[in-house]
Amino acid sequence: MEPTAITDVLDGRWAALRRTVREQLAGVEYRDASDLTTEQHRTLVFEQLHALAKTEGPRLGFAREYGGGGDIGGSVVAFETLGFGDLSLMVKAGVQWGLFGGAVQLLGTQRHHERYLADIMDLTLPGCFAMTETGHGSDVQHLRTTATFDNNGFVIHTPHQSARKDYIGNAARDGKAAVVFAQLITGGQSRGVHAFMVPIRDAQGDPLPGVSITDCGRKAGLNGVDNGRLMFDHVRVPREALLDRYGQVDADGTYRSPIASDNRRFFTMLGTLIRGRVSVAGSAGSAAKRALTIAVRYADTRRQFNRPDDKREVVLLDYQAHQRKLLPALATTYALHFAQEELTAALHELQGQAEPDERRQRELESRAAGVKALSTWHTTAAIQTCREACGGAGYLAENLLTTLKADTDVFTTFEGDNTVLLQLVAKGLLTNYRSEFQELGTVAMARFVAEQFVGMVTERLPSLGRDDPDALYDRSWQLQAFEDREAHVLSGLARRLRRAAGGEADPFEVFNNAQDHVLRVGRVHTERLVLQAFSDAVGRCADGDAKRLLDRVCSLYAVHTINEDLAWFLAHGRLTPGRGKAVNGAVNALCRKLRPHARTLVDAFAIPERFLDAAVLREEPDRQDVQWRHDQANAAS
Amino acid sequence: MEPTAITDVLDGRWAALRRTVREQLAGVEYRDASDLTTEQHRTLVFEQLHALAKTEGPRLGFAREYGGGGDIGGSVVAFETLGFGDLSLMVKAGVQWGLFGGAVQLLGTQRHHERYLADIMDLTLPGCFAMTETGHGSDVQHLRTTATFDNNGFVIHTPHQSARKDYIGNAARDGKAAVVFAQLITGGQSRGVHAFMVPIRDAQGDPLPGVSITDCGRKAGLNGVDNGRLMFDHVRVPREALLDRYGQVDADGTYRSPIASDNRRFFTMLGTLIRGRVSVAGSAGSAAKRALTIAVRYADTRRQFNRPDDKREVVLLDYQAHQRKLLPALATTYALHFAQEELTAALHELQGQAEPDERRQRELESRAAGVKALSTWHTTAAIQTCREACGGAGYLAENLLTTLKADTDVFTTFEGDNTVLLQLVAKGLLTNYRSEFQELGTVAMARFVAEQFVGMVTERLPSLGRDDPDALYDRSWQLQAFEDREAHVLSGLARRLRRAAGGEADPFEVFNNAQDHVLRVGRVHTERLVLQAFSDAVGRCADGDAKRLLDRVCSLYAVHTINEDLAWFLAHGRLTPGRGKAVNGAVNALCRKLRPHARTLVDAFAIPERFLDAAVLREEPDRQDVQWRHDQANAAS
Repeated sequence: MEPTAITDVLDGRWAALRRTVREQLAGVEYRDASDLTTEQHRTLVFEQLHALAKTEGPRLGFAREYGGGGDIGGSVVAFETLGFGDLSLMVKAGVQWGLFGGAVQLLGTQRHHERYLADIMDLTLPGCFAMTETGHGSDVQHLRTTATFDNNGFVIHTPHQSARKDYIGNAARDGKAAVVFAQLITGGQSRGVHAFMVPIRDAQGDPLPGVSITDCGRKAGLNGVDNGRLMFDHVRVPREALLDRYGQVDADGTYRSPIASDNRRFFTMLGTLIRGRVSVAGSAGSAAKRALTIAVRYADTRRQFNRPDDKREVVLLDYQAHQRKLLPALATTYALHFAQEELTAALHELQGQAEPDERRQRELESRAAGVKALSTWHTTAAIQTCREACGGAGYLAENLLTTLKADTDVFTTFEGDNTVLLQLVAKGLLTNYRSEFQELGTVAMARFVAEQFVGMVTERLPSLGRDDPDALYDRSWQLQAFEDREAHVLSGLARRLRRAAGGEADPFEVFNNAQDHVLRVGRVHTERLVLQAFSDAVGRCADGDAKRLLDRVCSLYAVHTINEDLAWFLAHGRLTPGRGKAVNGAVNALCRKLRPHARTLVDAFAIPERFLDAAVLREEPDRQDVQWRHDQANAAS
Repeated sequence: MEPTAITDVLDGRWAALRRTVREQLAGVEYRDASDLTTEQHRTLVFEQLHALAKTEGPRLGFAREYGGGGDIGGSVVAFETLGFGDLSLMVKAGVQWGLFGGAVQLLGTQRHHERYLADIMDLTLPGCFAMTETGHGSDVQHLRTTATFDNNGFVIHTPHQSARKDYIGNAARDGKAAVVFAQLITGGQSRGVHAFMVPIRDAQGDPLPGVSITDCGRKAGLNGVDNGRLMFDHVRVPREALLDRYGQVDADGTYRSPIASDNRRFFTMLGTLIRGRVSVAGSAGSAAKRALTIAVRYADTRRQFNRPDDKREVVLLDYQAHQRKLLPALATTYALHFAQEELTAALHELQGQAEPDERRQRELESRAAGVKALSTWHTTAAIQTCREACGGAGYLAENLLTTLKADTDVFTTFEGDNTVLLQLVAKGLLTNYRSEFQELGTVAMARFVAEQFVGMVTERLPSLGRDDPDALYDRSWQLQAFEDREAHVLSGLARRLRRAAGGEADPFEVFNNAQDHVLRVGRVHTERLVLQAFSDAVGRCADGDAKRLLDRVCSLYAVHTINEDLAWFLAHGRLTPGRGKAVNGAVNALCRKLRPHARTLVDAFAIPERFLDAAVLREEPDRQDVQWRHDQANAAS
């Protein structure tokens, strides 16, 4: 089968855009940056960013009335596709247009849009998204930086060193301004975190008075991005610097907001910013695709050890152990691709609406959190596996995996730490995505959970029937297994919290002792969404051959995922011991069946060849060796 | 409790040497090399190597009669301790004194020792260990480089590009000679792989005629080591270049060997070289200790999110999820430490004997393979976990984890690919470590296995009694669980191979379809050895407080390992579903109990402070924040 038949399925709704961006990428100079100095790499990436600013991609996410493309989903797809190339460029673009530009668009109002958006889009105004502080990253609500209203303006101040803005992209070298998140104080009262447009460098590129900028220095990867630290010493900005969509301050200092509750306003503001999180999930997927393409192509030609019965050496991918390394990772990459596409579409729909439904907004945030966590952890693990599967060659920069590994490593903890994100997913499920429960403390939430889940507490009997091995390959059985697990794990957690909430136990201890259970809820819920998305995509597939192949890939994802959590299915009586053992056999069988299609499945990612130019694939050493042995045999006979 | 009480237990048999090397390390200049260019880092490391050559450590592994220390175990311990510092220096030292010098000592004879050892020890002769070829790494027996006897000498030749020597440390820049592994051909007949001392550079540092040297370039890490590629175009060396302990060639070309079988000779030669593998396992452990020390110290001070009931923020290590990340990894690091010490002692005893028992030699090789595989995989995973547990800070070079991660990454695939090594463990168990079975093809081995395991084939009844949760904390129950699993998995594999060997199935397919089972044998056997070693160390412990603490750490290792493989225990009826669920609870409970001792347990590693000088530990940002909030509260009241 031609890989293009699969590519068409993968490309989906934004197919034309994906093709365009791939073609653009294919025309861009690319070099692995591992031997560049930090300064060389930053210079290169900033040049590339200027070139990118001349293309359509960066404008896609902005409103048409300011020169944007008005295609929110498209902007996420563009970032995802950029993930095939230098990830420093992707992240730098994400900082400029996704985070900095996105904050201005989503938290600002017309005057900010008119004043800034055009300059942001064409890179006249390179900027920062200054949210994280050294002491507060996950707990954004308790940032320490203050913006105190005074004399028709605000004074931005960093009270102590651990309140400095940290890891801020574009800060160390190129940024001229920053959207700074700070506690808004007016009339002696804190109104919670708000965003302010703060100039940080003058025309010569020197820090403005009161602004201290330091460099985060060398990082594991992404060294083309100039991450830095910002400190503010009573820096004055005008009243208009407040990005005031969700909170305004009058000239006399009166605070007004369309959202009365500080907590709800905070979560509403944060919620608008999930595009960055969605984009990270997408580009993590692209990085995994690239690593798998390299590793599968290598494994498909590289040979080692003779077959016992003859002198031929065995191709690596014919070993079961090698299949088990790469093919479940490949299937998971496919599954996450379709979940990502569904997530992108949901984001596109919702952020396109003037008044998005709040419950659907919370659901979207939860889905974004879950998919981001699973996608980035998967990418870290898959690239590690690919590196090891290429042996010593995988450790050399010339084979591209080392840079991929180093660049993507931070994805699991930036744009939301994955462990925190999975808890957010669980909280959403427990509170049924009601925004008012964002504000609940632990005790109140436990009480609410207790009420909500009354009647859902009886241990359900094993519901996964059909004790024949073929059931493992049955999509409806697979879906049922994932759904059943989710429902049971969630109701078990609710029951546990209800029991605890009724007692005298310290509420922190109650939650903390159940934290593994909470994280499990986030994971199994998201895995169910991912399987559902993959299954739906297979269902939509028109091409019969492509559909049959993808159906098998989907089964491998499902069965592999069950196998990874087999203890749960056994301990909860969902699978008999005999059936449990059969799950591992089914993973092996599916790997064997997919092995001949492995090359097709990676080629279908349609990654421009210049990003796959690993030295070890150019040389094809084992082809030489096969030829040499053939010649020797001929000479001897 | 003072950490020193634990340090004494960890230091064990080579305590004095460990202290000496730590003191030396503490006095050596150290800088994280992540912002050095490749050339700067290589220069620095080579200078440090010269300084190291003036100390006792490098001489330890060589015989006293040539100026060595005659302390084989001590030499391994010295490498292990070097692993606290720059791993490029450790690897460069390992190449020079462990691999290159070790090959001369172990494969050469008196004339080689007299001629080379002094120069190797004092670094007058920097050299390479040129074994791996681009096309043959794991399958050393089928290297393509030839050494053809001709006119009282040998002609070393690389027949085609994929037969070039690859990833060779010391080759790209500093090596003057190389021990080259090649197929010895004399009288038109191949005698298998032998080692030859081949000069590669002249006094000016230029490649000698016929020798082509290229640079492997930038790597993920270890960029202070100059890995390169060597090709030989009919390079003549004298007859004495053959390191001829196991095979001699007379002036007329007659081949003689004390070991008649080519296969057995090959495995005997390889077997002498396991010291490098043992050293890698040890220094991997040191790297994990260093990463865990940084991550635990950070988690012990860093705070995030308020407690629901008050304004204090929670210290990271008080979160169950954070404990689950770091403490089982810490317990596993302890377990592997004691397994490593036992391995080192076994190596010391055996290589100290003139005529080591062959079965014990095979057992030692198997143990080295298993511990190396588990130790290096653990290190890769543990450092990744530590990186993530430090969030964005973990991604900055100034916090040292990024370099640790990048440097150790190759450990899983060099000095034996871990997947191949675990198969070697299984093969040893199946053949009962009999050396003659090293030569067996797959079919013959399956037949042998079939015979050996007759009578061992009945499915054993669950033997893990005591269905009370306390049993999980009982050492004898834990050991029994590990032993029972090992016996069952091994006999299951034997049964499976016997069934297959009796049929008409393709022997490659038989083995290949059971490869996951084979790998599992290697893993569960080694895990049992590791638990046994830890348990024995606890038993030897004289200090009561230290013993109680280590006993709990040992339990965490045992219960965590069972939890990771819980599906097996459930599917094979070893644990009831209820007991299975209790295992996870026991991991949580042990983490909670060990949490107050976490700092003690990492400080006990006694790593010189200069290697722990992470910026984020210097700054202690959350201490500032606590002070600031305290001051604010005072000012308000």
